[in-house]
Amino acid sequence: MFTNTLIGAVAVAAVNVAAQGTSATTPAVPTGTPIPGDYTGPLRPQVHFSPPQGFMNDPNGMFKDANGTWHMYYQYNPTGIVAGNQHWGHATSEDLYHWENQAIALYPPEEGQYVFSGSAVIDVNNTSGFFPDQDNGVVAITTIAHGGSGPQTQDIAYSRDGGYTFEWYANNPVIDSTSSQFRDPKVIWYEDHWVAVIAYSQEFVVGIFTSPDLKSWTWASNFTRHGLLGTQYECPNLVKMPVRDRDSGDLLEETYVLALSVQPGAPLGGSITEYFVGDFNGTHFAPSDATTRLTDFAKDNYAAQYFYGTAEGENPVNLGWASNWQYAQQVPTGNSEGWRSAMTLPRANYLTYAPRIGLTMVNEIYDMSPVLEDGDALAEQTMGNGSVVVDYSDVASGAVFVDVTVTGINTTLVSSFTTLNLTLSAPASGEALQSGFYFGGDTPFFVNRGLLRGFDNIFFTDKFSIADVYSSDSSALASWSMQAVVDRSIFEVFVDRGTHAGTVLFYPTQPLSQLTVASRDLPEGAQVSVSVRALKSAWAEYEDESGVVAGNVTETIAKRHMAYEAAF
Amino acid sequence: MFTNTLIGAVAVAAVNVAAQGTSATTPAVPTGTPIPGDYTGPLRPQVHFSPPQGFMNDPNGMFKDANGTWHMYYQYNPTGIVAGNQHWGHATSEDLYHWENQAIALYPPEEGQYVFSGSAVIDVNNTSGFFPDQDNGVVAITTIAHGGSGPQTQDIAYSRDGGYTFEWYANNPVIDSTSSQFRDPKVIWYEDHWVAVIAYSQEFVVGIFTSPDLKSWTWASNFTRHGLLGTQYECPNLVKMPVRDRDSGDLLEETYVLALSVQPGAPLGGSITEYFVGDFNGTHFAPSDATTRLTDFAKDNYAAQYFYGTAEGENPVNLGWASNWQYAQQVPTGNSEGWRSAMTLPRANYLTYAPRIGLTMVNEIYDMSPVLEDGDALAEQTMGNGSVVVDYSDVASGAVFVDVTVTGINTTLVSSFTTLNLTLSAPASGEALQSGFYFGGDTPFFVNRGLLRGFDNIFFTDKFSIADVYSSDSSALASWSMQAVVDRSIFEVFVDRGTHAGTVLFYPTQPLSQLTVASRDLPEGAQVSVSVRALKSAWAEYEDESGVVAGNVTETIAKRHMAYEAAF
Repeated sequence: MFTNTLIGAVAVAAVNVAAQGTSATTPAVPTGTPIPGDYTGPLRPQVHFSPPQGFMNDPNGMFKDANGTWHMYYQYNPTGIVAGNQHWGHATSEDLYHWENQAIALYPPEEGQYVFSGSAVIDVNNTSGFFPDQDNGVVAITTIAHGGSGPQTQDIAYSRDGGYTFEWYANNPVIDSTSSQFRDPKVIWYEDHWVAVIAYSQEFVVGIFTSPDLKSWTWASNFTRHGLLGTQYECPNLVKMPVRDRDSGDLLEETYVLALSVQPGAPLGGSITEYFVGDFNGTHFAPSDATTRLTDFAKDNYAAQYFYGTAEGENPVNLGWASNWQYAQQVPTGNSEGWRSAMTLPRANYLTYAPRIGLTMVNEIYDMSPVLEDGDALAEQTMGNGSVVVDYSDVASGAVFVDVTVTGINTTLVSSFTTLNLTLSAPASGEALQSGFYFGGDTPFFVNRGLLRGFDNIFFTDKFSIADVYSSDSSALASWSMQAVVDRSIFEVFVDRGTHAGTVLFYPTQPLSQLTVASRDLPEGAQVSVSVRALKSAWAEYEDESGVVAGNVTETIAKRHMAYEAAF
Repeated sequence: MFTNTLIGAVAVAAVNVAAQGTSATTPAVPTGTPIPGDYTGPLRPQVHFSPPQGFMNDPNGMFKDANGTWHMYYQYNPTGIVAGNQHWGHATSEDLYHWENQAIALYPPEEGQYVFSGSAVIDVNNTSGFFPDQDNGVVAITTIAHGGSGPQTQDIAYSRDGGYTFEWYANNPVIDSTSSQFRDPKVIWYEDHWVAVIAYSQEFVVGIFTSPDLKSWTWASNFTRHGLLGTQYECPNLVKMPVRDRDSGDLLEETYVLALSVQPGAPLGGSITEYFVGDFNGTHFAPSDATTRLTDFAKDNYAAQYFYGTAEGENPVNLGWASNWQYAQQVPTGNSEGWRSAMTLPRANYLTYAPRIGLTMVNEIYDMSPVLEDGDALAEQTMGNGSVVVDYSDVASGAVFVDVTVTGINTTLVSSFTTLNLTLSAPASGEALQSGFYFGGDTPFFVNRGLLRGFDNIFFTDKFSIADVYSSDSSALASWSMQAVVDRSIFEVFVDRGTHAGTVLFYPTQPLSQLTVASRDLPEGAQVSVSVRALKSAWAEYEDESGVVAGNVTETIAKRHMAYEAAF
């Protein structure tokens, strides 16, 4: 264990401080100084990214480089456990689970400024002119907040070492503004030009801009007042997405998704992400309908960003910020473990035609094999009505993956008691995280975190649910599935092959260590396949002899990389 | 007290039975037999409508007649405390608080059919031909469900006695269908013809139909896949609504609102109502933007319907069903008191331009003076930071009205601790219903029903919140207000002059009897005005000598009316 010298006595007092960047004090940021991370705390996720210490929020600047390395930056206050003093932290991964903490990548250009959310691209063709003799130049496009309530401008920085260190462009801003509510540029390449989507947050407008060179930008169109407004638009993402056949996975067509984060004022309270499906012609996004769709049925997935640079035709991959501004700055990990916020699991997305509701974004957990424990599963069982109980208290990570598939469901014979439940519990304290599906009636899937006692907060809603139309034919033999990852203080569940996703923070006073999958009143002929796998800690292998995982350092990259290569 | 002979041993077993009309058994319905109602139970609302006994859901057929009498019909299972065996119950009121239970107005035309939701109009000009010598003929337009999974057709019935008794039209249906998901016609008059909006529920379409005579209908247009879909559209309402200046109340213009209930699959779980603002030209509704707006920030207000026949230029008035299909059939009033579901308070609506979010529907509680207790208020106080505690255990109704206005708020000086809280508690059990507002940060208003222990249900979400942008000018001296009615098991709150409304069922094990309004860390100069008024039971005066309020009777109308007139 290490002494938490950096965080020190930063107390968590403020309830509902402004969402971004209004830190009252700016302690010295540890330029070039390693930030020690203790990833062993009982609430610290083991297969999710979280910063070594301090406060994290939105994922930023994410891209996959030509070597296959995933780069993730993130809104980071390295000197506190609430938002403020915003920098871009940085981490890299070969597999999206094992993350190497890198040096802080973007510092404010001047005192009193904050580096807010933004994106990054690889300027392969040197459109910017920053990279005369290389094809792996990285340009970050981000919002600079000129003080907590000053103007927000769009600025760029370039990296000639593949994204590890950046120089601010001399002629910033590239998009000037007098507005204090103009932020979160996300840039993609469209045929022959760059496209940025930027939120005019409190006007409920997504501005679409184009550029030949990432330096000079031209306003092209606005996407205005769509969907749920909350009281601010943030973090727009425009992404090309395949539409796939629900059963075969075959590509049917490609279309665009405009994802938009809304905060505060979401229906579930606080922050949420919605998305719109439509056509994009290089300058204008035209939604194919007026439907408002949500990415998540719970309330702990915000500001997800898609990686730039994944291969054409592949399902785009995102990470979201697994929290909610209503309590992100109050969750107990800050005081007990010196960090706050993790990213979601990496998710690959495509669209499909779900029964009844039509075009819907499917979430697939990105290949988890790098963190699946070798050897036998904790459980691998097929049953009709019955239950599987797994004591996983000796899984070192405390993290497990649960995969349940129910087949041969005669939907005309399901009753209002036909259920499949997954319950995680802490036998010592009696706490439990409940989830389950009712196959009859309104077919709700639910999650209840109200039986855990580690966090008391007026906005920490206990129960979430979504109706899943799992079969389009009432007489068919239907199938239904759920996949879930439980990781100390994060529960992520993917219902009906990812048709619905739920991201749920939970805070037990004792570690959850027992798992029950139980089916009840299934019609004859239905079969339940249950697979429970232990997950390996993605962090344990980076610990030094004293158990510390360093952050804010790059000098160990080569060493770590060799260790990583040796491990697989 | 009376013996609950009609309900008898109808047990509440089914969780998530289908939302509507799939009763397995159809016990004899008490045609012409009074249904005794006990309105004294500790969970029975005293200023809200609830049926004498049995299960109620959507408000139906609501109109205000030429004499000023408000007619409300309602989805009613008179023989059970879960949905099924649907009829139209009926009640009338002179003031929207004192309701006289009337005879069941619509029985299924044939065995195996159910009378589902619909609306009613006054055919002043006898367009239908049903009323050759009267101008007060009433036509009900409703869905007949031909069995639980058979077709749903639109049928009409006419009443020559002002809405008390109806005859089914001989040539029904007036809109035939082969679909089992086509329902809930709401009819209005537009210039020179009738207009019906009807939900093609599982296709996410509102069909707009026109008719000269209520008998022959022509399809005119569809309003398709707007807003949140859930998994069904239900109960569309098209209503002309004034747009008023937020401060003066002056009429700026008139526009239309299309309200749509969605269930299941709402963001908060189960059922919710959203609305769209736009133009209507007699055949087509054109939304003025693609915004999705919700009528309520909690989850217990569904299927609201606007009264037909209110005066041109007046704010339209609605009642909603104060429940959620996720637990409407499980709430404890069924087993303990023999009834389930109440209507919301009557609400008058208009649109206004709220700070930042723009066009928003405002909810005003309809004139409550008929149920305000005479004499002194329980509290009438002005303070800065401080608290008002009221013991209202001797208020016979158990119902109170709380009105709080905060003025002179220097918004540049509010902190993250600046709060106004309203807490209702049961000192004997320690239970509490919490609500409050944070004037700083993300400015959330919250309600928490998680500290009450009278109902344990996996879908009974504990916490709700909404961000309220209460001031458009950060340097101004702002004001903020809330009004709330607490009525035994229903809490309705109207935030910032009705800009946001929350309808919250709650089930204490002991009656709530103490109320605290507390302000904290308000900037100097801010003033809090608190008024707490006892409410009179609207039901007590209808009790006979044995305490019974009869339902399903009309013969006492005249007598009751005289009693009513004498009372005011």
